[in-house]
Amino acid sequence: MHIHMDWDRAARTGIDEAILCLSKSTPQLAAIVQAARDRGRRLLMTRLEPKAFEALPPAVAAALDYDPESRTAVLGGPIHLAESGVGILAAGTSDAPVALEARRTLAFAGYDAVSILDVGVAGLWRLLDRRDEIAGFRLIIAVAGMEGALFSVVAGLVMAPVIAVPTSVGYGVAAGGGTALNAALASCAPGVTVVNIDNGFGAATAAVKMLRLTELIA
Amino acid sequence: MHIHMDWDRAARTGIDEAILCLSKSTPQLAAIVQAARDRGRRLLMTRLEPKAFEALPPAVAAALDYDPESRTAVLGGPIHLAESGVGILAAGTSDAPVALEARRTLAFAGYDAVSILDVGVAGLWRLLDRRDEIAGFRLIIAVAGMEGALFSVVAGLVMAPVIAVPTSVGYGVAAGGGTALNAALASCAPGVTVVNIDNGFGAATAAVKMLRLTELIA
Amino acid sequence: MHIHMDWDRAARTGIDEAILCLSKSTPQLAAIVQAARDRGRRLLMTRLEPKAFEALPPAVAAALDYDPESRTAVLGGPIHLAESGVGILAAGTSDAPVALEARRTLAFAGYDAVSILDVGVAGLWRLLDRRDEIAGFRLIIAVAGMEGALFSVVAGLVMAPVIAVPTSVGYGVAAGGGTALNAALASCAPGVTVVNIDNGFGAATAAVKMLRLTELIA
Amino acid sequence: MHIHMDWDRAARTGIDEAILCLSKSTPQLAAIVQAARDRGRRLLMTRLEPKAFEALPPAVAAALDYDPESRTAVLGGPIHLAESGVGILAAGTSDAPVALEARRTLAFAGYDAVSILDVGVAGLWRLLDRRDEIAGFRLIIAVAGMEGALFSVVAGLVMAPVIAVPTSVGYGVAAGGGTALNAALASCAPGVTVVNIDNGFGAATAAVKMLRLTELIA
Amino acid sequence: MHIHMDWDRAARTGIDEAILCLSKSTPQLAAIVQAARDRGRRLLMTRLEPKAFEALPPAVAAALDYDPESRTAVLGGPIHLAESGVGILAAGTSDAPVALEARRTLAFAGYDAVSILDVGVAGLWRLLDRRDEIAGFRLIIAVAGMEGALFSVVAGLVMAPVIAVPTSVGYGVAAGGGTALNAALASCAPGVTVVNIDNGFGAATAAVKMLRLTELIA
Amino acid sequence: MHIHMDWDRAARTGIDEAILCLSKSTPQLAAIVQAARDRGRRLLMTRLEPKAFEALPPAVAAALDYDPESRTAVLGGPIHLAESGVGILAAGTSDAPVALEARRTLAFAGYDAVSILDVGVAGLWRLLDRRDEIAGFRLIIAVAGMEGALFSVVAGLVMAPVIAVPTSVGYGVAAGGGTALNAALASCAPGVTVVNIDNGFGAATAAVKMLRLTELIA
Amino acid sequence: MHIHMDWDRAARTGIDEAILCLSKSTPQLAAIVQAARDRGRRLLMTRLEPKAFEALPPAVAAALDYDPESRTAVLGGPIHLAESGVGILAAGTSDAPVALEARRTLAFAGYDAVSILDVGVAGLWRLLDRRDEIAGFRLIIAVAGMEGALFSVVAGLVMAPVIAVPTSVGYGVAAGGGTALNAALASCAPGVTVVNIDNGFGAATAAVKMLRLTELIA
Amino acid sequence: MHIHMDWDRAARTGIDEAILCLSKSTPQLAAIVQAARDRGRRLLMTRLEPKAFEALPPAVAAALDYDPESRTAVLGGPIHLAESGVGILAAGTSDAPVALEARRTLAFAGYDAVSILDVGVAGLWRLLDRRDEIAGFRLIIAVAGMEGALFSVVAGLVMAPVIAVPTSVGYGVAAGGGTALNAALASCAPGVTVVNIDNGFGAATAAVKMLRLTELIA
Repeated sequence: MHIHMDWDRAARTGIDEAILCLSKSTPQLAAIVQAARDRGRRLLMTRLEPKAFEALPPAVAAALDYDPESRTAVLGGPIHLAESGVGILAAGTSDAPVALEARRTLAFAGYDAVSILDVGVAGLWRLLDRRDEIAGFRLIIAVAGMEGALFSVVAGLVMAPVIAVPTSVGYGVAAGGGTALNAALASCAPGVTVVNIDNGFGAATAAVKMLRLTELIA
Repeated sequence: MHIHMDWDRAARTGIDEAILCLSKSTPQLAAIVQAARDRGRRLLMTRLEPKAFEALPPAVAAALDYDPESRTAVLGGPIHLAESGVGILAAGTSDAPVALEARRTLAFAGYDAVSILDVGVAGLWRLLDRRDEIAGFRLIIAVAGMEGALFSVVAGLVMAPVIAVPTSVGYGVAAGGGTALNAALASCAPGVTVVNIDNGFGAATAAVKMLRLTELIA
Repeated sequence: MHIHMDWDRAARTGIDEAILCLSKSTPQLAAIVQAARDRGRRLLMTRLEPKAFEALPPAVAAALDYDPESRTAVLGGPIHLAESGVGILAAGTSDAPVALEARRTLAFAGYDAVSILDVGVAGLWRLLDRRDEIAGFRLIIAVAGMEGALFSVVAGLVMAPVIAVPTSVGYGVAAGGGTALNAALASCAPGVTVVNIDNGFGAATAAVKMLRLTELIA
Repeated sequence: MHIHMDWDRAARTGIDEAILCLSKSTPQLAAIVQAARDRGRRLLMTRLEPKAFEALPPAVAAALDYDPESRTAVLGGPIHLAESGVGILAAGTSDAPVALEARRTLAFAGYDAVSILDVGVAGLWRLLDRRDEIAGFRLIIAVAGMEGALFSVVAGLVMAPVIAVPTSVGYGVAAGGGTALNAALASCAPGVTVVNIDNGFGAATAAVKMLRLTELIA
Repeated sequence: MHIHMDWDRAARTGIDEAILCLSKSTPQLAAIVQAARDRGRRLLMTRLEPKAFEALPPAVAAALDYDPESRTAVLGGPIHLAESGVGILAAGTSDAPVALEARRTLAFAGYDAVSILDVGVAGLWRLLDRRDEIAGFRLIIAVAGMEGALFSVVAGLVMAPVIAVPTSVGYGVAAGGGTALNAALASCAPGVTVVNIDNGFGAATAAVKMLRLTELIA
Repeated sequence: MHIHMDWDRAARTGIDEAILCLSKSTPQLAAIVQAARDRGRRLLMTRLEPKAFEALPPAVAAALDYDPESRTAVLGGPIHLAESGVGILAAGTSDAPVALEARRTLAFAGYDAVSILDVGVAGLWRLLDRRDEIAGFRLIIAVAGMEGALFSVVAGLVMAPVIAVPTSVGYGVAAGGGTALNAALASCAPGVTVVNIDNGFGAATAAVKMLRLTELIA
Repeated sequence: MHIHMDWDRAARTGIDEAILCLSKSTPQLAAIVQAARDRGRRLLMTRLEPKAFEALPPAVAAALDYDPESRTAVLGGPIHLAESGVGILAAGTSDAPVALEARRTLAFAGYDAVSILDVGVAGLWRLLDRRDEIAGFRLIIAVAGMEGALFSVVAGLVMAPVIAVPTSVGYGVAAGGGTALNAALASCAPGVTVVNIDNGFGAATAAVKMLRLTELIA
Repeated sequence: MHIHMDWDRAARTGIDEAILCLSKSTPQLAAIVQAARDRGRRLLMTRLEPKAFEALPPAVAAALDYDPESRTAVLGGPIHLAESGVGILAAGTSDAPVALEARRTLAFAGYDAVSILDVGVAGLWRLLDRRDEIAGFRLIIAVAGMEGALFSVVAGLVMAPVIAVPTSVGYGVAAGGGTALNAALASCAPGVTVVNIDNGFGAATAAVKMLRLTELIA
């Protein structure tokens, strides 16, 4: 089994190695986990579907902290979480798995986050009721599918950088997440940056880079 | 010049004849206006670019009430306007021509309307400051380009039917209006219906049908 | 289980809470139904596939009036239905589930409706034979997939507002419903408004808003 | 100037040489006409914009029968036209140039045709009033842009083969003709075949092949 | 079960009733067959997947002549087949089911046809070796997926009308058949008309209309 | 002239008012500048084409610091620039206008930046030669069109957050910038966030929010 | 079973017959293998999924050298492999099946190749560390999904022709491989040519043609 | 004027510096030419429209060998051309500019080539008549727009590698060249590789890399 990981990534870019499990075979996944264990490395696995997790050799699976809702697994156990000031806002119940992927990725990197779900703009008061709390975040990850109106509304309310994560939640013209993605990119509110559809991991990773920026300053 | 108008449309569908001037030649447009004058009919012309208007024979042009901002012309003069309770909300300054096309179409059909421009969600307070006024409309035509977040926010705030008019305002992924269109169709707020991109005329026509529905009742 | 419903929606927008079940997990759905029951609220569930319904806890399932053809469930039992004057026209047999979703949504809101199926324009006489009945509706919901020609033909025949619901029925260029959607938006007949593909619920909700508009008047 | 025409096309496929002028330079066009004149051949030129025609050398232009509305030119003069039983139906005034391109192509091949314009389905009576005449055509070329509902309605009414020519007339989702094209391909009425957007020439050429099929029989 | 068939279609358009089974439920399909049997009508069913056929009530299934390769079923038994002069050319082995759907549709209408498979242009000699036979057809249905080059090559070789049926055979940019479809529409060879992707039925129906055209003449 | 600016935006979101001039008329632009002058506000204008600038009333134009390469104008004069540690990398000469828009936006907000142009990956040494300088930036704005490979390469080399600005530079499949946009979103390098095509302004605004985040810390 | 293979392909184009198994039925596949065995021909089968292989008659399966990772089967046994100087570079672990399809195709044609996996540009050092080895290849097949940045980076480093194989690895905007495909086509590095998504076979076939070109010279 | 050329490209990749002029300003272009002259370098400029050429300072323009048909300019004068065995085949007259761009690029690199225009497959005999000549080329660049059938037909006839250059010639579904591009990628004939739409330069550059491969061997 050929495995050629980028173990020095953390030193070079500040981000630990993480594996997108989507198109990898069971032997490939098992070999990657084993290689990390052999080196005593921590590892984050994303897009690990329950069936793929269950197909792993028991010894490998046992070494992982697996969460089926976010489809993520962590090798290396929990670490101390620093307060980050990051708020994760999700428009609907169906967006929760992506929001949770972002939260688990932040935790893997050592940062806590506050999640606020079900603040879609169709019930604007749910968002406005918590406006002070939301305005207090240092950094916001906004997660929404369908028409993605949440991104613009939130960005118009706060000082913090807003990272938009469009999701594939929806049907018809919203199927696949393209509408939410384009809405995020075309937002009339300045200061929004965007990651790929359903990419909670990518949003969290970008957030980590921004947080470390503040640490370098201090 | 072959002209075969649908002069009985008003009797059959309640909507007077209107002409989309976009792909018609100057002789075609002139013949249509003349045919309407010969029959003593009123006529609405949409998408009549200034250059196309100026190319018309002077006698034809003189018979028209032309408005360059909305690119509309009316044959037959103003009529008495009834209060309709229709509010036209536009997200940005660039959406004004489409909002104005809707307003001129309503006036052609005998209805007044209230326009509120520059209520894009990036500055949510502009919308919320006028929330009572907006909630008082019987019917709302919402006009927005770019990411079209206005549609969902408005529809979540009011009892009235909301007709969404996506516009082609924007660039990059918003170019052409497809993003705003899809956002309107995928809106998380129930009760929104949608017309074609930049189709202020169509929105107003649908509004007229809804208003006449209430008249039939009373 | 985090559930943050918008229970005040009816008071604010005139539309009771409804749940799109498409991307929600069984625990999420069960918790939502339970929350509604705890509050004594009525609830409409759409896109609830038979398998998802069968996966619900028996006590939850027993509380629901489930209809597999339209994939809808209602919590709270039937209510008195007022005559609405709404006609639901569907082009083909395959469009029936979406037409039925619209009808069940209207019933949930307290309105009856008349359904006329199999009036696709390939057999135009089927539509023309019932032209008087169709012209008598106060409001029409037209449901069609494939090329969506029904929308323009119906809208050219009647005074009533026409809400077009494109469906995903078809194959090749019609797959997914995009062709019918664009045909509805580009209709040469004025006064058509459009909702998302397969969105019978959205069409019915918009219809309810229009119907209540007439009630406010009276 | 390199010119390598397919002068034997008529003998092989029954269709005389025709030139799509769209992307050809003035010297290329002039050389092609000259080559045809040198061989005493007839030639049809399509998509010859007025500016491109005016740029031709006067001697070349003088040899052509140019029609600016259909943007076609014919070298070789008129020939006797046989009655073909072909009807060309166009939905709107803006579709006339494409319908005329089809008619001029049929005439180039020696066939007359009857044109009926402005029979779009929004005013269905315009079509139904002439139903007997339309049912009497042996072959129908239907020309429509926007949502292209004409194709299905006509095909459901007649015995004749229907060749659909979608046009680029329209804006928003109809821009470029893709919606009309897909509507033609997805038609719920059997027996419709389709050519490229704005391709009146192609429809007429296919019609000629079908007509010659009947001549071979007789 | 509501069933509203178009039993007079044959009288009006020359094409017997046929049913697209793609999105219809088992009860719907069974009811349609029963309605046809009650009236003593013949019926063609297309896109009837083996699983859908097997789900039919045994008495219904027994009345049908089902062919799994083309996914078609015929109610009413075989009829005498007239020689039609139609040739069906398919580019590859994978295109055979669509070619067979066309052939079965022709047979349902009473016409025989000659099938020539595996004449894709990558091995041009396979096509050129049978050039005389191909040139002898009165009408050609060409079936091809992937890049659809067959359409242009065949149309450049013959006098007969060519009906192109693009298929969904292929992967990557060819997935779904859109590339073959566009290649057919954009063909540099005049006289090609096109039907929807995988629509062997539609091609055959159009062919029947053309063949009957010749019968009307004679 | 109706002008309803969001003058409190800076207080609420930390970003001064800026105007996208793309679809605004000359009277609209002039009125906006005048309104800002009346209030003594600074103002940034983006996408102000030279022709649009020249069409402004002389008194208005004279008040602006206009830069034709980046198509930006500033009202309110230069302010003191703080060192920001922001590096702006552009792949090619043609990307310079977008890079410059970002730089001018940063300057409008009071931050200096270092620009490094012509570091496209086709000549990887140009990038690697300056690797130390690039690794020293606190924040990177990467600007690239065509295939957008620069985003992934840069993000793999540095600790800093990378904001990707795809540009519309290119032709064929790259026309319009969609390929570069998708490449940025699909980057295999974690930590990249993305803004709309050609949106140098948006990237700079997001950068300002991130920089102010560090200031809040300190 | 109709089978009409192109057995003379090798003589005409230098490429032995190969079969794309994607849309072929089990009887078709079995008949093709049998036909090749009857003629004593070698045969390459691509896109032969494990389930399709297992469905083959045992005698047929036993005659094949099947590799499940690349989904390829070879009839005719191994042949001597010449050193080709071809390097196959793959960006990630998930791209391995496509890279292996290319390698197996080269082996089928008698050429060895060197594979280097996991050289995606997010960890650029993995590529640069082996720069000398990569620069030594006579011909490079580069395999990458997601954003496809590998193509441009490699092509900027070497003298050899680079054949890009985009893969369908990725999600969101990268789903299906279109982003990697467009990135390859729009590459800023000259000298890259491209094959269809996931088409390792096509890249290897093109490589064989180039290699034979050199043999013809020598 | 910042200019940062990749003057060492030839040493590294075997391809001299070339400039895509499409989005560059006149000052940028003039500075690039001047920089090349200062270093005594040869330079190829592509996509240099006549208006852009005429806008160059006279001294700069005078130093260039400009060809308006192919929109290319060469700095450094003609060099000795080696026989390459490359054949450039173009389907139609309108494809000539792209074919010529390829030929001029080959000449810039020191290779002659044979051009054969007007060999589109609609008149297959034009291609077959020259089959021996075509089969004798060592390397083929095939140029075609519209449906791009030429690519598959040629690749099925020859031993040589075929580089496909789709062009933007066509209208309707062929507009922009996407249909020809997809046809090339989906070709049923093995051994075709593809470059971007209208990219005659890229095809020639790839050809040069392949030709030099043979030189390295010899």
